[in-house]
Amino acid sequence: MADDTAPPVGATLHLPTDRIRRFVADNDPPTPCLVVDLAIVAERYQALSDSLTEAAIFYAVKANPAPEILRLLVELGSCFDVASVGEIEACLRAGAQPSTISYGNTIKKRKDIAYAHEMGVRMFAFDSAQELDKLNAEAPGSTVFCRILTAGEGADWPLSRKFGCEPLMAVDLLRDAAQRGHRVGASFHVGSQQRHPNQWDGPLAEVAAMFRMLERDGVTPAVVNLGGGFPSRYSDVVPEIGAYGKAIRNSVARHLGPLMNGPDRPLLIAEPGRYLVGDAGVLFSEVVLVSRKSDLDERRWVYLDVGMFSGLAETMDEAIRYRIRTPHDGSESGPVVLAGPTCDSVDILYDKADYHLPMALRPGDVVEILSTGAYTTTYSTVGFNGFPPLKSYCV
Amino acid sequence: MADDTAPPVGATLHLPTDRIRRFVADNDPPTPCLVVDLAIVAERYQALSDSLTEAAIFYAVKANPAPEILRLLVELGSCFDVASVGEIEACLRAGAQPSTISYGNTIKKRKDIAYAHEMGVRMFAFDSAQELDKLNAEAPGSTVFCRILTAGEGADWPLSRKFGCEPLMAVDLLRDAAQRGHRVGASFHVGSQQRHPNQWDGPLAEVAAMFRMLERDGVTPAVVNLGGGFPSRYSDVVPEIGAYGKAIRNSVARHLGPLMNGPDRPLLIAEPGRYLVGDAGVLFSEVVLVSRKSDLDERRWVYLDVGMFSGLAETMDEAIRYRIRTPHDGSESGPVVLAGPTCDSVDILYDKADYHLPMALRPGDVVEILSTGAYTTTYSTVGFNGFPPLKSYCV
Repeated sequence: MADDTAPPVGATLHLPTDRIRRFVADNDPPTPCLVVDLAIVAERYQALSDSLTEAAIFYAVKANPAPEILRLLVELGSCFDVASVGEIEACLRAGAQPSTISYGNTIKKRKDIAYAHEMGVRMFAFDSAQELDKLNAEAPGSTVFCRILTAGEGADWPLSRKFGCEPLMAVDLLRDAAQRGHRVGASFHVGSQQRHPNQWDGPLAEVAAMFRMLERDGVTPAVVNLGGGFPSRYSDVVPEIGAYGKAIRNSVARHLGPLMNGPDRPLLIAEPGRYLVGDAGVLFSEVVLVSRKSDLDERRWVYLDVGMFSGLAETMDEAIRYRIRTPHDGSESGPVVLAGPTCDSVDILYDKADYHLPMALRPGDVVEILSTGAYTTTYSTVGFNGFPPLKSYCV
Repeated sequence: MADDTAPPVGATLHLPTDRIRRFVADNDPPTPCLVVDLAIVAERYQALSDSLTEAAIFYAVKANPAPEILRLLVELGSCFDVASVGEIEACLRAGAQPSTISYGNTIKKRKDIAYAHEMGVRMFAFDSAQELDKLNAEAPGSTVFCRILTAGEGADWPLSRKFGCEPLMAVDLLRDAAQRGHRVGASFHVGSQQRHPNQWDGPLAEVAAMFRMLERDGVTPAVVNLGGGFPSRYSDVVPEIGAYGKAIRNSVARHLGPLMNGPDRPLLIAEPGRYLVGDAGVLFSEVVLVSRKSDLDERRWVYLDVGMFSGLAETMDEAIRYRIRTPHDGSESGPVVLAGPTCDSVDILYDKADYHLPMALRPGDVVEILSTGAYTTTYSTVGFNGFPPLKSYCV
């Protein structure tokens, strides 16, 4: 259970783990590569389950769809939040039951909905009349949840604008959906890498107000989808997972108490991605060049063999700031601009973020980019500038 | 030769071309997909050759490394600017001679330089002492050119900060390089999709000043690399290619005249990427959803089956604004936000750019995104959100 005195997320985790170190020592894989420790994924799954006992966990497959991770989570009893037919197939290949899969993308082709329904998927997201029409036509008898707009404050990778509709529109759509024979619910997303556990409170109050309107019309809500947002440990300290569990439980009790204690208690769903796999991974990268632009330049430019287009896309606008270890840590350091290996000026990882790295850093040194298990491999391009996609290994 | 009355780039080109239309009609390829008309690539190669008769053309492979494009350009007599070992191998597979390949990335692993040199590549870029050390060690007897910093004004995809060093540092490095037995030169890049033909003038003046310093020390410069920057036709009109040729020829004559007319005339190099292949391609994409966020919303959200992570990465910060055709063009239109199909809020193509699309637009409609032959396929992710990489066809 949640422990208020627990340390922040990732604080007690020493990366790379021994298992990752051993794998690299034994196999010497060429850089750049990501190595994911499955034991950390299992620990995180357990910690989140313990912190949010009332919620079913639907892993956000997009965070890292490695077959080994999906198979582990199937074994642990996880459900799955998918964004596409490709992710449905990956889950089924890993042994997931179709009934444990939620098609959480609000933007789906009609034929993809039909395919998912045929495969046995019965849970779908939407946020518009047109998408509901598609679900009515292609996914009869499903559980459909409408995503509402949220502010996304306090999140390092906000998700506020593209998805969701106004709650009043959502109520109308859910009423229609219920009349068409669907079980209905609501979802929201507080933004990825959400640093403030209390950010679930506002949306839950909105959902409660929506549910009261629906109940007045005789519609019994079946699902409350809390979305994701649970963090990994990057440069900035984030609260421990128990704090998220406690804040969410309190908000659920405050806003949805009577409903949650009643006979028609809706299913509570959480969709962690980053939290489960982010801290489980370490990306190993070789320094290619350390240079200065002029003799007067104080800052060095450090170019790695991994960049924005080979896995580190979340450094866009320097949103996600990874911790970086080098073989020279502890020695004198100085300010750097950190960049990737391509001939693209956009491929700069950190400029404003004021990273400092050892003065002794040289080409050939291998740096460890910590907590890179989420949103890296799949963001990798097929071969921009002729560099191959990021390789990954699960240990 | 350059014709001052010629229309702007792309003005007389009607996309999709008949060949592209015929291919799509005959094959009905699933969306999203890119179709590239090789005849346009050949026309562009000829037009640039005619406009810049003095320059050798080194195709920037990163713009589109499709084997069909590389083979065509080998046939036409093009040379190649590459960013990696992967691109060297692609050129060699397409039949290019190693002597026609320039390794233009200033960030290279030592072992990759050694490999390139072993393959017969003899032209290399650098912009720092450390990189020159690698070239001295692994690529003896080469032509090495030092890239200088430029302002990159007037470019839609600027390249100013990551590459290049101060000209005074460049002179020192080139003097060292010459002493180590290399032939030496200078390069710069005015920024990709450069709208102003006069932007080559400033850097050419800098190069001329550098060359005078080198000549005083007895070093004869062997290469002037003009970089790329030649545009495709996106939403904004750009000058015709002859205007670029004329402006560059005038600047070369003004700043480097005596040298260019002397016995040791350096090789003039241009590295077009976007100009050769951009306007040759059309991306076909299906509308997945058209929605509003509330009943009061004036702007519709139009979601396509292609986005930032499946080829349209250059819409980042709405830098490159593609022209879009729909089956309903000519009918009443209204403002839209245009977005991709993934569960990522970053995957919004145009929001501030104020795109208008027909009110009649519906899911299932296929839209044509014009001039997408450059910097699309290779920017595509390996499978973000489970969506496959962008397919492409050359006709």
